[in-house]
Amino acid sequence: MNFEIIDVDGLGRIGKFKVRNKIIQTPNLFPVVHPYNNVISTSELKEMGAKCIFTNAYILFQNKNKREEVLKKGIHDFLTFDGLIATDSGAFQQYMYDDGKIKISPEEIEEFQENINSDFPVILDVPVQLSDNYGMAKNKIQETIKRARENIKRRKKLDCCWFGPIHGGRYLDLLNKCAKEINNLEYGVHAIGGLVKAFLDYRFDLTIEILINVKQNVKPQKPIHMFGLGLPQFFSLAILCGCDLMDSAAYLLYARDGRYFDLSTGTKKLEEIEEFPCHCPVCINYTPKELKNLDKESRTKLLAKHNLYISFSELKRIRQAIKEGNLWELVETRIRNHPNLVKAYHVIKKYVSFFEKYEKSYKEHGRLFTSLDSFNRPLFYKYESRLKSKYRFPPNVKNLVVIPEIDIIGIKSPIYQECFDYINLLNNNLKEKIHVVFCSNYFGIIPLELIETFPLGQHERSETFFTCNEESPPFKNCKIFFEKCARLYEKCALLIPPEIRNQFNEIIPFPKTHIIHSLKQLINHYTTIKVKCVSKFDEILKFFNEV
Amino acid sequence: MNFEIIDVDGLGRIGKFKVRNKIIQTPNLFPVVHPYNNVISTSELKEMGAKCIFTNAYILFQNKNKREEVLKKGIHDFLTFDGLIATDSGAFQQYMYDDGKIKISPEEIEEFQENINSDFPVILDVPVQLSDNYGMAKNKIQETIKRARENIKRRKKLDCCWFGPIHGGRYLDLLNKCAKEINNLEYGVHAIGGLVKAFLDYRFDLTIEILINVKQNVKPQKPIHMFGLGLPQFFSLAILCGCDLMDSAAYLLYARDGRYFDLSTGTKKLEEIEEFPCHCPVCINYTPKELKNLDKESRTKLLAKHNLYISFSELKRIRQAIKEGNLWELVETRIRNHPNLVKAYHVIKKYVSFFEKYEKSYKEHGRLFTSLDSFNRPLFYKYESRLKSKYRFPPNVKNLVVIPEIDIIGIKSPIYQECFDYINLLNNNLKEKIHVVFCSNYFGIIPLELIETFPLGQHERSETFFTCNEESPPFKNCKIFFEKCARLYEKCALLIPPEIRNQFNEIIPFPKTHIIHSLKQLINHYTTIKVKCVSKFDEILKFFNEV
Repeated sequence: MNFEIIDVDGLGRIGKFKVRNKIIQTPNLFPVVHPYNNVISTSELKEMGAKCIFTNAYILFQNKNKREEVLKKGIHDFLTFDGLIATDSGAFQQYMYDDGKIKISPEEIEEFQENINSDFPVILDVPVQLSDNYGMAKNKIQETIKRARENIKRRKKLDCCWFGPIHGGRYLDLLNKCAKEINNLEYGVHAIGGLVKAFLDYRFDLTIEILINVKQNVKPQKPIHMFGLGLPQFFSLAILCGCDLMDSAAYLLYARDGRYFDLSTGTKKLEEIEEFPCHCPVCINYTPKELKNLDKESRTKLLAKHNLYISFSELKRIRQAIKEGNLWELVETRIRNHPNLVKAYHVIKKYVSFFEKYEKSYKEHGRLFTSLDSFNRPLFYKYESRLKSKYRFPPNVKNLVVIPEIDIIGIKSPIYQECFDYINLLNNNLKEKIHVVFCSNYFGIIPLELIETFPLGQHERSETFFTCNEESPPFKNCKIFFEKCARLYEKCALLIPPEIRNQFNEIIPFPKTHIIHSLKQLINHYTTIKVKCVSKFDEILKFFNEV
Repeated sequence: MNFEIIDVDGLGRIGKFKVRNKIIQTPNLFPVVHPYNNVISTSELKEMGAKCIFTNAYILFQNKNKREEVLKKGIHDFLTFDGLIATDSGAFQQYMYDDGKIKISPEEIEEFQENINSDFPVILDVPVQLSDNYGMAKNKIQETIKRARENIKRRKKLDCCWFGPIHGGRYLDLLNKCAKEINNLEYGVHAIGGLVKAFLDYRFDLTIEILINVKQNVKPQKPIHMFGLGLPQFFSLAILCGCDLMDSAAYLLYARDGRYFDLSTGTKKLEEIEEFPCHCPVCINYTPKELKNLDKESRTKLLAKHNLYISFSELKRIRQAIKEGNLWELVETRIRNHPNLVKAYHVIKKYVSFFEKYEKSYKEHGRLFTSLDSFNRPLFYKYESRLKSKYRFPPNVKNLVVIPEIDIIGIKSPIYQECFDYINLLNNNLKEKIHVVFCSNYFGIIPLELIETFPLGQHERSETFFTCNEESPPFKNCKIFFEKCARLYEKCALLIPPEIRNQFNEIIPFPKTHIIHSLKQLINHYTTIKVKCVSKFDEILKFFNEV
């Protein structure tokens, strides 16, 4: 196997994953298919864009006739699918439906997967459940690790790509231990399991926390898979946090339940839909009424196809977003689907320094900030670190002018232009003593010298209609700047005009929620500089000239 | 004509609009087609779902051959389109390309539209441009109103449905005057014009302000049309604010410019796309590479078709959202497309009492709040008004217990259950004196008696990760409650436990950003009640028993 990373954004990445001379692009989805009773045929799946599928080796193994047939034909011929095939070991069945009847040994089921020529066999792991207590969870990961070690010794086929399951659930210490152990063994894919209950309960925050922890503990050269991740509205956030592959039967399970995927408004019940808001081949050929009137089997199949089209659409959109560097923007749109997605997005804050390591310093397109949730992005943290450790202030300055950033940003803004003209009229001696900085509702203090660097000068944002708390990036960056630079200045003038000129050359009132309004208090709290709020430029010089 | 309103959400509505025995559903889009040189044929448009189209009577009128042909055949046969056809009068051409050459009179062009049997003729109005000064704008609306009056006297066909254009641009007094005048005349559709430049500049806030002003001044029994509104990511917000119909060539103009519509990530350049994130008939049959290699004409046509599919998709999604009562939720997803859409959404705040009149008191589905932007919704204002004017507090209470609302809301929450058990142990005399209220990050104070009413007990929300300012609904509602009820109580206990039990029965820390943390200060500011923050229930009784 070979996993080549082509592009990255956040912890998300586009990869070329080559196994047995077949290549899939990542991120990608393995639709789960029943080994001999699948609703959408594998040829249809292929036509719809599936390059890889997931099936269940355990179910085949249990059925004597099918077992012999698949052993003879191999799994690809058996399923008539020439793409990549992953096979589950039955561990999921054991833990979901265990009534003591499911008897299976790792030796048998793992060897069987090799014999049927699975491209991605999975060891018989022991999934930790969210309801397990610490002791149970610990025993389970120890058993999983033990089996993972034993599997390596038993392997006969070396060209297939084994999934190494990682467990631990909400016990992050166990999870991290398991991740490290599996990471040290020869597994082609790091696969996070035991999350089905969490997905069903919309506990996206927990799954994101688990994913990021695993990501921190495994080699970046191997893809990370998440078992059971199938809700397309969650794809972008999971991929942003490092997920490369996922398998799921959600498209089908939801369809059986009469549920229709929509990426903008969430999953809907077919019975409530009067018009399909989609033009996929299913939605263009059937009205909701027609679909409702079909027999259950046909209806399920068509709904499942629509759900899968939507899932593939989202994967394509995500790969495109990674290429363009717009994955954060896409995620911030998608999380509006459900409050729990927003909650999960905020988990990132705890790990922002890890994200910052992978964040590009420059992107071709300017950034868009459409809510305060954007403060979770590592680029704010990056600017904070830059201010803290790398920023060198200009020598000999004595007087600080803070001008607010509003509407047009940077040196093209009318407010800066006026400032520039004003300062230019001064003699050189006075001019050199003045330091101009911007005050931004998103980035806090931005020294003039930095205003054109990415993304300070390359973004569009909505106003902040709500006050930020003191832990938010603009406040933190203001604090950092003044803690670091206060000793330079004797005086600081904050320009707060009653009105400003906007980009359409119209006069508008100065926004009440601009962070510059709280700056005097903050500066007085951290420094002993004399601070004055002025409404016009000519007051600035008066203030600087006062003894 | 007949306009029957079937369902409403916000100021958005589903209508059945019947003109000359043809019915269209509203909201709906008239794709603009060139009268004899259109890129997508009218039969293809019909197949794609277009029920109504917009073409230009002026262009036909200028061309002698075409004029004679269309006068003979009528516009429907001429265009081979049996749906509804609106015809523009040339006013747009006059104002966009006026070099003195465009000579046309209202009498001629208006009669011509009747003679070719247009379903929706438009008078020759005089569009106000955003760059016009007040005097120019005033003259223009006076001329438009004069022409609108004269048109009525001249009309010969009485079964067609005239568009009455409304102008005024950013001069809201002129706009409102024009709206009132047109509203008093016999026009079938109120049509807002002069906004093309605003759409091109993404000035969605201005167009929303104009739309809401017009909406306040015209009869609700007539549909409102917006000329030139064609960006599908703006549809939902415009419809929420009262737009029923729109016409646009955007699908085609963007396609000519090689631009591809995507509702989640905004408009993209074809050259930057590697995979189409869509399964419409265009995207399923072509790869971006194939499309790029076609000749310009074929490429434009296919892109235009995709753009139109996306536009129709969005209209269907919006109509579905109105039926389900989820239009606010859809809008709050869609505005993440661009910061200017967020800005425009906040215009609603200024008109919230107008929106409140139309807001349903009950909806079948619970609400979803995924950001503080949800505070723009009138349901928060509705609760505020209810608290202020209708809420009757219980008699004889002396002691107030405020319990925070977190995770599970309402009486099913573990924190309330504990409170209930605790109070139940008290004797009746003590019990009667205690009033329990919830403190919610979204609704402020919710008295126990109201907790099950819609939407207080029927919503899901993300935590508020940022502090709200004092003008936000929860703060305002807390103030209102205490201003009104303070005199009832002698003591108030605020329960702020260090930890809480979440819906998954796990212990988590109490959120730092909960509004209850600021409540003591607020109560002390507005009242003279004794307030105490307690971490456990048994401290409450101790506090109430203290002299």
